[in-house]
Amino acid sequence: MSPSRISRVAVTPVAFADPPLLNVVGVHQPWALRAVVEVHTDDGLLGLGETYADETHLARLTAVAEALPGHDPYDIHGLRRLVAAVLGRETGGAGASFGGMLDVSSAVDTVHSPFEVACHDLQGRAAGVPVSDLLGGAVRDRVPFSGYLFYKWAGHPGLDADAWGEALSPEQLVAQARRMVDGWGFGSLKLKGGVLPPDEECAAIEALAEAFPGMPLRLDPNGAWTPETSVAVADRLEGVVEYLEDPTPGIEGMAQVAARTAVPLATNMCVIAFEHLPPAIAADAVQVVLSDHHLWGGLRRSAQLGGITDTWGLGLSMHSNSHLGISLAAMVHLAAATPNLTYACDTHYPWKDQDIVAPGALDFVDGSVAVPTGPGLGVELDRDRLGLLHEQYLRTDVRRREDTVYMRTVEPGFTPNTRRW
Amino acid sequence: MSPSRISRVAVTPVAFADPPLLNVVGVHQPWALRAVVEVHTDDGLLGLGETYADETHLARLTAVAEALPGHDPYDIHGLRRLVAAVLGRETGGAGASFGGMLDVSSAVDTVHSPFEVACHDLQGRAAGVPVSDLLGGAVRDRVPFSGYLFYKWAGHPGLDADAWGEALSPEQLVAQARRMVDGWGFGSLKLKGGVLPPDEECAAIEALAEAFPGMPLRLDPNGAWTPETSVAVADRLEGVVEYLEDPTPGIEGMAQVAARTAVPLATNMCVIAFEHLPPAIAADAVQVVLSDHHLWGGLRRSAQLGGITDTWGLGLSMHSNSHLGISLAAMVHLAAATPNLTYACDTHYPWKDQDIVAPGALDFVDGSVAVPTGPGLGVELDRDRLGLLHEQYLRTDVRRREDTVYMRTVEPGFTPNTRRW
Repeated sequence: MSPSRISRVAVTPVAFADPPLLNVVGVHQPWALRAVVEVHTDDGLLGLGETYADETHLARLTAVAEALPGHDPYDIHGLRRLVAAVLGRETGGAGASFGGMLDVSSAVDTVHSPFEVACHDLQGRAAGVPVSDLLGGAVRDRVPFSGYLFYKWAGHPGLDADAWGEALSPEQLVAQARRMVDGWGFGSLKLKGGVLPPDEECAAIEALAEAFPGMPLRLDPNGAWTPETSVAVADRLEGVVEYLEDPTPGIEGMAQVAARTAVPLATNMCVIAFEHLPPAIAADAVQVVLSDHHLWGGLRRSAQLGGITDTWGLGLSMHSNSHLGISLAAMVHLAAATPNLTYACDTHYPWKDQDIVAPGALDFVDGSVAVPTGPGLGVELDRDRLGLLHEQYLRTDVRRREDTVYMRTVEPGFTPNTRRW
Repeated sequence: MSPSRISRVAVTPVAFADPPLLNVVGVHQPWALRAVVEVHTDDGLLGLGETYADETHLARLTAVAEALPGHDPYDIHGLRRLVAAVLGRETGGAGASFGGMLDVSSAVDTVHSPFEVACHDLQGRAAGVPVSDLLGGAVRDRVPFSGYLFYKWAGHPGLDADAWGEALSPEQLVAQARRMVDGWGFGSLKLKGGVLPPDEECAAIEALAEAFPGMPLRLDPNGAWTPETSVAVADRLEGVVEYLEDPTPGIEGMAQVAARTAVPLATNMCVIAFEHLPPAIAADAVQVVLSDHHLWGGLRRSAQLGGITDTWGLGLSMHSNSHLGISLAAMVHLAAATPNLTYACDTHYPWKDQDIVAPGALDFVDGSVAVPTGPGLGVELDRDRLGLLHEQYLRTDVRRREDTVYMRTVEPGFTPNTRRW
């Protein structure tokens, strides 16, 4: 048979409502942005990908999309070369702002990722096998996720309270957690911290531990603390949290903390690209790395990260940004086919109430999502929903993630809290 | 479609004539052994693999073969678990003796490898794509190999000289190299050393450099030297060799040498499993790792090794044992799909004159083999040839690789030369 070739690529920015979730750099804007990537082949198949949609990133995605027709969807290495060639020297800033929290030296991985996922979706559809099979096969048929708790306002400024309501106290967070656990069945919980003084965030974790005995708990202040404070928090929460994520910024700071606590330190800030692994491992800075196929350059490179953490005896977990169903499907296949991904994965999924995939493929049962067994990613685009979310994108003036800018419309003097306490 | 399942597995030991090639532990026996693995599916496809055939290894392969029917050829992670379960605690010695030169803690990788290759052959045949596509796509359409030179006797004891004749002097090695280069077009050369005193082996390398100006040269004494001698050789051959392979045994010894020379040190002895990478990297012991899918657990794990060497900025080359065409095909697909495998690969291929695959798929042109573009590995089993080589196996009494034992039939007092000089 003659190999199929990519014939047409569409990149569609979409927006969906996002609650006012607080973090170290500010607060989530009323609309979260994503880009949906459709890769069509000349034999009539469609592969899907999903990524960030900050306008700089969107422009890069569009440039790659224009260069893709004629490419072989099996040629993943060539896809990466093509992305690098299209980007040329314009590769700074990872192609997405991440609200100002992250920094990598090249956008090649982030731009490559949705096309790489779409090519795997195509390969799976062509061969009649799920994407997990293309990654070595699922080692688990359900992927457990962690309920992701946030400090939040009752509603966006000037609007009514949302269905989740305010969460600024331990009691309110316990109520939020209860809703998460009752609604989705999560068997572990993560609190996004870095919002309130560490003493208050520790009290929240302790309240969660009391309300949910035995539940694995994580706290992620996104580098809000000094190494000294991080050690004090670790001492207080030892035996209560399964890990502390990014208590302090940077490999050097994390190494200082790691040397003084038995609590495992996880990261999605100081190790977010392959170039960060050698120095972090040499410094023994982290014990758990958070995988993220959007950030690490797709499914194969994320599997590669899994192999590295396995080789060096590091733990492996999975990071999430606000996302829709195509990303969730890719996360589920990747997690299922990564043997040493033994921590429950993060997900923002419960925080949104719209999607662009047909319902039913990715239901949460007992906090887990069953690995789709159909061809490819196992999700289908719902074009009515895609159209609706694209119209929402066209109507909003949000064009990039700007948590700090948005926070300053409410608190003009707000400064990002990194290493504040 | 219903996924295909493995229906039947055959493991066939074969023997082919091997010249008296000398090395640090002795001399090649008259017959080299390999095992051919055939994995059949219930929808009529056949996948091929090739590996060592020492009797211990063969027994393990047979045990796995009996357990495989019903397995999904896409389930590579499950295959590995199955191999580990079948081996149980009987995993010592890597399942093959390697003439006594190598030591790994588990046979899971070596036993897993031929079945993993056969499963990829099946996946490629089912999807209609070459194995290189399953590994991310070929980044080169031809894979360059290095001509592999050996000190050797004129013929096996008691038999006539073989077509290659004696090679014990620099002049004879240059003649051997000339034949390699003229016949196969190799653009780089490797000398298996550890046979004669280092001074003589250095003189041989210098003679090769003079006879083939600009040709990349490698010398591999299999750990025959002390660190002190290794540094002296490195000083003498700096600018003449592209790398020195395993001048001295062990990570610690290699690190001592590496600290005192600018000549890159390569290894296929002290880093031959994932467990060896962290200590070797921490000690900065090696600059080039030799990949070998037979030893590292198959194609996916070898790709994983490629990613690790890329991440840590190590060079990547490829090791060879005496092998036939199924192994060569797998080596070519793997090398083609490994972007940072920029050194020419080793191969023993010119040293044999029989094979078990149909001719024509793997011809050497200018020292390179074109990557097969047909489905799977792109080679077909020739059952007449397989039968002939199996009969040769049945007729010989060689049942394991025993270079030292064989050498002692000629030199009763022979001792392996590791760290001798």
